[in-house]
Amino acid sequence: MTAERRHAPPTQDELDLLHYQSRIERPVAAKIPEFSRDERLRHVIFSRQFSVELLEDLAGTADKIRALSKARAGQDFLIGLLSHKRAMLYFTQPSTRTFLSFMAACQILGITCNEVRDPSTSSETKGETRFDSIRMFSSYFDLIIMRSPVAKLAEACAYLMNDLAASGNRSVPIVNAGSGADQHPTQALLDIYTLQRTFQFTSPKDSPIGTRFDEIRRQYANLTRGLSRKVYGFCGDIGRGRTVRSLAELLAGYEGVSLVFVSPQHPALSLGDDMRSRLVNRGVRVFEVESLETPIDGRPVIETVDALYMTRIQKEHNDPADEATFAAIDFSKYKLNRDLVNRMKSYAPILHPFPRDQFFGEIPQEIDADPRAMYFRQARNGMWARAALLAHIFNVDHQISRYYHEHYE
Amino acid sequence: MTAERRHAPPTQDELDLLHYQSRIERPVAAKIPEFSRDERLRHVIFSRQFSVELLEDLAGTADKIRALSKARAGQDFLIGLLSHKRAMLYFTQPSTRTFLSFMAACQILGITCNEVRDPSTSSETKGETRFDSIRMFSSYFDLIIMRSPVAKLAEACAYLMNDLAASGNRSVPIVNAGSGADQHPTQALLDIYTLQRTFQFTSPKDSPIGTRFDEIRRQYANLTRGLSRKVYGFCGDIGRGRTVRSLAELLAGYEGVSLVFVSPQHPALSLGDDMRSRLVNRGVRVFEVESLETPIDGRPVIETVDALYMTRIQKEHNDPADEATFAAIDFSKYKLNRDLVNRMKSYAPILHPFPRDQFFGEIPQEIDADPRAMYFRQARNGMWARAALLAHIFNVDHQISRYYHEHYE
Amino acid sequence: MTAERRHAPPTQDELDLLHYQSRIERPVAAKIPEFSRDERLRHVIFSRQFSVELLEDLAGTADKIRALSKARAGQDFLIGLLSHKRAMLYFTQPSTRTFLSFMAACQILGITCNEVRDPSTSSETKGETRFDSIRMFSSYFDLIIMRSPVAKLAEACAYLMNDLAASGNRSVPIVNAGSGADQHPTQALLDIYTLQRTFQFTSPKDSPIGTRFDEIRRQYANLTRGLSRKVYGFCGDIGRGRTVRSLAELLAGYEGVSLVFVSPQHPALSLGDDMRSRLVNRGVRVFEVESLETPIDGRPVIETVDALYMTRIQKEHNDPADEATFAAIDFSKYKLNRDLVNRMKSYAPILHPFPRDQFFGEIPQEIDADPRAMYFRQARNGMWARAALLAHIFNVDHQISRYYHEHYE
Repeated sequence: MTAERRHAPPTQDELDLLHYQSRIERPVAAKIPEFSRDERLRHVIFSRQFSVELLEDLAGTADKIRALSKARAGQDFLIGLLSHKRAMLYFTQPSTRTFLSFMAACQILGITCNEVRDPSTSSETKGETRFDSIRMFSSYFDLIIMRSPVAKLAEACAYLMNDLAASGNRSVPIVNAGSGADQHPTQALLDIYTLQRTFQFTSPKDSPIGTRFDEIRRQYANLTRGLSRKVYGFCGDIGRGRTVRSLAELLAGYEGVSLVFVSPQHPALSLGDDMRSRLVNRGVRVFEVESLETPIDGRPVIETVDALYMTRIQKEHNDPADEATFAAIDFSKYKLNRDLVNRMKSYAPILHPFPRDQFFGEIPQEIDADPRAMYFRQARNGMWARAALLAHIFNVDHQISRYYHEHYE
Repeated sequence: MTAERRHAPPTQDELDLLHYQSRIERPVAAKIPEFSRDERLRHVIFSRQFSVELLEDLAGTADKIRALSKARAGQDFLIGLLSHKRAMLYFTQPSTRTFLSFMAACQILGITCNEVRDPSTSSETKGETRFDSIRMFSSYFDLIIMRSPVAKLAEACAYLMNDLAASGNRSVPIVNAGSGADQHPTQALLDIYTLQRTFQFTSPKDSPIGTRFDEIRRQYANLTRGLSRKVYGFCGDIGRGRTVRSLAELLAGYEGVSLVFVSPQHPALSLGDDMRSRLVNRGVRVFEVESLETPIDGRPVIETVDALYMTRIQKEHNDPADEATFAAIDFSKYKLNRDLVNRMKSYAPILHPFPRDQFFGEIPQEIDADPRAMYFRQARNGMWARAALLAHIFNVDHQISRYYHEHYE
Repeated sequence: MTAERRHAPPTQDELDLLHYQSRIERPVAAKIPEFSRDERLRHVIFSRQFSVELLEDLAGTADKIRALSKARAGQDFLIGLLSHKRAMLYFTQPSTRTFLSFMAACQILGITCNEVRDPSTSSETKGETRFDSIRMFSSYFDLIIMRSPVAKLAEACAYLMNDLAASGNRSVPIVNAGSGADQHPTQALLDIYTLQRTFQFTSPKDSPIGTRFDEIRRQYANLTRGLSRKVYGFCGDIGRGRTVRSLAELLAGYEGVSLVFVSPQHPALSLGDDMRSRLVNRGVRVFEVESLETPIDGRPVIETVDALYMTRIQKEHNDPADEATFAAIDFSKYKLNRDLVNRMKSYAPILHPFPRDQFFGEIPQEIDADPRAMYFRQARNGMWARAALLAHIFNVDHQISRYYHEHYE
């Protein structure tokens, strides 16, 4: 679009984004307050909107929703909470997983879902601007969950909604379900939630006599519960994996974490300078290595990490100019196999944002049966975490806690 | 389709339409009774099915639905009204706005929605006729809302349903959501509803001491409430704007209205002869001018109109044969700008069926903040008006009135 | 896919199917137990899973759902039964009828529906395997209804779900809505249900003095109620009509049935040897003829059959190598017309899986008004039969019976 129009006058869509350029260019910290209202998130645009306190709060809500969903009475209670709300899932960039995860999350709370996925069937073909489309959605629906190939579009839509509210017009919350290459906050939310659950080290078999945590501690005496003071490995496409960046940002909020980035030494694939300095400034120990075998604190990464986050090599984003240098890279170092997994800590979860690439094979299926393989449960966690986020936005999380405490304690 | 088959034997689809040709060719007035049952609309095919009495009735229902939707109790009451009904939205001609507006309208009343939008995924690819598809829909669902590029198809489907009922078979209501270039009755309904609300001249700030209406009358002493005795301007693509024709037809039902059509003097773009004579015969004062600056009763149109209906130039329907003559037309006269709007009456609403064309720019965004800009609220009005229409069809409008009077008076 | 990769290493999708090859290659009878749990169907993969007892049971449930759906109270009861369940309709092979029929069936019981229809919008474009997609669906939803061009895929997914359950993972029921050319069990279910209803020979006009059955018996003294001891005709594309094979399999379960297959004598279009021998071994009288005029037991087929199942010639599956031999076939013998229908038994229903082919014309529209034309009611029966099947899978059929007996007897 922009490319072929480079020498043409800007389109209204481009002008609409330009209109918010100065607000978009502020540092994230300066922007975050605008996306909250009455002490809670109004729009969800950046992963950095999730403070550690909020993350703990959302995890608590997600755990309760999950528990209530085990029995019909709880399910009916949840479905009744927001049955008067209608959501628009505006996904002009395809993503079946994120889309279905949000659908399910809405349905758990009784929200009626509507979708626009193929822009070609939309009024845009009649020359309508994106902002006019968004205002249309906001006039019919109570929530807009959007995923777009256009960077910053979700952020700009949040400003539009705030400006409408300021001028006394109807305005609805915007949830960013992936905006260009820059942000995918709810993916980071579910990654954190998966780590939170894993590092509770609880198990149905736990008893006053002994718990799974006690058991693990026989082998790992210094192990503590929670996300702090742990070593997190990220392996594969670090440079282009927005989920890696978002998760790293959130982990930086916890005390004494070490982040190990395992990727080829190639500017497109390795950690960005801005990201590195931001992490270091927040007191994170950052390691960048080319292999899971490289030693950290005297032992290979694969044996050191408390959690391993695998990623897909995003070939579809390859710059043709890089093909030559890419061809020289030994990508086999960024794939797991049985032997590697066997050397990992017994409790260390393997995560992956999915989909995994069957042709590249960063996680071969032989790993799926391993107790450390968390990536399938991770998907279901995404549904619970997103439901918790929606409950927070619509201010029904306290009702959930109340119902839970009345019926389950 | 028809084009490439011109010399081939007629398809069953063509024969199906031919079968109803004689009924289709009757004057509209003669057809209308067939689309009613028990004093209420059974099928909604033509805007002329909406008598002034019915329009006032539907506006009353829409106002009540809107009011009930402000509180959870009212929303739950509405959602319960038709939660046992299933609708099919059969949109083989794309239209995101009309589609989503109907979806939201259904959801407000609890109707479950299903859709068929892309004919290529439909059984038609196996040689199924449209009528077989419609009968399939009628066997699974309780209502068919259809939009099609085929003129008269909705009307023909209504006849099919009536014939099925007559022979003791299952039959469901048909709602025309846009059928070829000929009819788009619910657009006219929402346009009227927007005018009805605007010309109530009420405001939250109204009090026994003074109302917004009193205020406006200081400047416009002869102003009356309601749609009668007003001047309505239509600007742009009059010839190909079915929404213009439908709205003009309905306005002709009110007393002493003047209609001003502002368009280039080109047969494809200006008022049709049949339309003009029909309006004149109904006692409407009809003006046709080329510019918003042309004087009517001594003052420029832009300063005279009580409401201005802007339209998009439907370039996609341009006949190649017209390109030369079109190139000679100064289309800039059919665009609004700040100066023009500033000269309009202070209360005169600006309407547009939307989407507006960002490339042509008949309504630049600088107008959006003006209190006269009604086109965004118009979209939301469409949702309420369509919900009122569905409530009428399924005979639950009286329940809505009863609930409203019990709880709000 | 497979074709162009023939010489390439197998894809993971191919390996996934190979993994279950040995289980897939077992005789059907040996596989059926795996698809049940606690005395009821867990996965619906083959039509042969429907025993005569189960078919009678499902017909009873379908009749009750139909009856309850006539009044608001019954509809609300049904909608409440499974309103906590979410279904995924995974249709990578288009089929509007089957898709909408399942949607409506789900909605009757309150099940919330989600869909993935266009694989191109799915994660598969990022190299995800089908099994990873299925596991994703199973993590968000409670039921997967799938239709795929890949033979045996639904069966393989059922094994995957069973293996997941065995290893303590989440697992949901799989319903086969058409898998390649091999199986379409719920089509057979609705065909049987249509015959069951027809051969009850009841009518609203029945009274203690006289019933429709008495009336018919004046002309056909030996006629009995039910599906046993009847002659069933199948006409058209026998070789490629999976619905014909599935229905024939189920009819073979009834006593003393005769099956007459009317098709061209062409290996692609006529009855397969395996099928013939299986039917004969089960005690079915099997006739294969080229015309509806061929005598059976002394009278032409058209006058002999108690029910006639018409099919569409599936030209889209023509093997180019057959074009020459096909051109020599007189297909007009496989089309109905008024005269033929007039010679049928007065009560003999005409069925068709639909869509019918308007260009071939196996059932011209002049037949639609004939009381024997059952194909439109057949579609609606599909909705009731599928709702009954879902009620069976989720174990709420007894609740339906209880409610029915409390309120209707």
